[in-house]
Amino acid sequence: MILTVTLNTALDITYRVPSLRPHTSHRVSQVTERPGGKGLNVARVLAALGHEVTVTGFTGGATGSVVRDRLADSLGVADALVPVAGATRRTIAVVDERTGDTTQLNEPGPVITPGEWSTFQDVYENLLGSVSAVALCGSLPPGVPVGAYAGLVRSAHTADVPVLLDTSGEPLRRAVAARPDIIKPNAEELAELTGSHEPLRATQDARRRGARAVVASLGGEGLLAHTPEGHWRATPPARVHGNPTGAGDSAVAGLLSGLVEHLPWPDRLARATALSTATVLAHAAGEFDRGAYEELLGRVSVTGEVSAA
Amino acid sequence: MILTVTLNTALDITYRVPSLRPHTSHRVSQVTERPGGKGLNVARVLAALGHEVTVTGFTGGATGSVVRDRLADSLGVADALVPVAGATRRTIAVVDERTGDTTQLNEPGPVITPGEWSTFQDVYENLLGSVSAVALCGSLPPGVPVGAYAGLVRSAHTADVPVLLDTSGEPLRRAVAARPDIIKPNAEELAELTGSHEPLRATQDARRRGARAVVASLGGEGLLAHTPEGHWRATPPARVHGNPTGAGDSAVAGLLSGLVEHLPWPDRLARATALSTATVLAHAAGEFDRGAYEELLGRVSVTGEVSAA
Repeated sequence: MILTVTLNTALDITYRVPSLRPHTSHRVSQVTERPGGKGLNVARVLAALGHEVTVTGFTGGATGSVVRDRLADSLGVADALVPVAGATRRTIAVVDERTGDTTQLNEPGPVITPGEWSTFQDVYENLLGSVSAVALCGSLPPGVPVGAYAGLVRSAHTADVPVLLDTSGEPLRRAVAARPDIIKPNAEELAELTGSHEPLRATQDARRRGARAVVASLGGEGLLAHTPEGHWRATPPARVHGNPTGAGDSAVAGLLSGLVEHLPWPDRLARATALSTATVLAHAAGEFDRGAYEELLGRVSVTGEVSAA
Repeated sequence: MILTVTLNTALDITYRVPSLRPHTSHRVSQVTERPGGKGLNVARVLAALGHEVTVTGFTGGATGSVVRDRLADSLGVADALVPVAGATRRTIAVVDERTGDTTQLNEPGPVITPGEWSTFQDVYENLLGSVSAVALCGSLPPGVPVGAYAGLVRSAHTADVPVLLDTSGEPLRRAVAARPDIIKPNAEELAELTGSHEPLRATQDARRRGARAVVASLGGEGLLAHTPEGHWRATPPARVHGNPTGAGDSAVAGLLSGLVEHLPWPDRLARATALSTATVLAHAAGEFDRGAYEELLGRVSVTGEVSAA
């Protein structure tokens, strides 16, 4: 069983409009809704890969009920979400049908009370007793202390459960010092953490700050990994066009599934890169195209070298 | 008891963002929600004026539950909404804090099945037995026949209940032929109905098409009324600045309360104009400033003449 944590779950709503013109009124031509927040996206991809997965974090209000109802319909995802008094946030992606561009509006999320945060920590520590790996994903809702992920990383260490962290800003900086097994920043998050815009230097620096392994996602250029076992670069066979929403979450699912299956790093990176690329190619945002994934898997180039023992 | 009908109820959501820039990502700094749809707005104002009011129309899904929960908190509004399988639509108003401008995104609303429409008609005809007036407000959700309001006007006539209609486009055109007691188009809706952009000529033309009385709302310039009893123009004492959301709904509440209180037309028009202006001046969209309303009531200018008997 793999555990994914999404402290700031969301109801992801997509609106299609013929053309977005600020300060005018629009009739939305199509509305789609799905459970969101990085950890829930990771869980969906893990389930599609055949892994048993449990999700936890916070949900509340009418939006939270929709998220839980939809999750219950997803085969293979167990719901250990903690109910809170506030309402789960909405995110609205407004797709301009003329240009294909997306305008994003993200609600901040409910304020989590100290009692709710304490309940979550109990639930999390309990779940750690029965999982093979954990992913800590996304932003913190208001009320959750900025050092939250650092504490959750330490609890995972105590329970001897490997932990992957995918967040940004100050919560990332604090948690890196607690020595997570893997972090997966994108180029911008990595630069914010290390002060360096040079990915090779920045991944090395992030390891010096405490992360055991750093896998930087470089958008369409693939992944750059620095680990105790070696360093590699994974590159998709060609640049693809499509919707990058969820591509990073698919990469996390690839890395995490590879970890619990004890795959060597080059195989984990190939899987993560193929899943990420197949997500950009999918029709629905955040899904992945299984045919494209299987076809891409053998065509990802992984170059690098194993560390001297 | 006054009845207001809102076939396409809504959960009205307002987002404040520092500055709206298309094709970028925004953190929403403030989220507010309230039950919406013209008839619900009218009902709230009527209740604030001390009238007993019942609301009907359709609600469904998680958004519909939020609408009903919030309505239950509004003192004096009785809920006779008909549950449907589809989800009540959301409307999103994105307020740009830099310019104060609003960008509106309106979902289409749930598809109403023939069975749900038939259930509504039964509920409506039942309610007509115990009400002193009815307001038919707003757009039609998908699935409701375009001649719906014409049928609802005829049912009101059969039950001897005066009916005010506030809609637009083809549903307005069809229903005007069924001879509603009052219609309250704005200048644009009136021009669309009659083909004339000259309000005086257009209100007269709308009466020839079947409406017994026509009250055109001319934005900040007040109201223009043509009725069997005479014709008048009501003008607020000064142009005001603020948020015009709901100003037309407050005018409807003013006209309808004046009708059931048997006020002469000039008093109804003064009340409707003062309420409408006090709504523009209110802090929250769609509310009205009671102090401003009471102060404005004596200062609205109403000029015109009574028809020859």
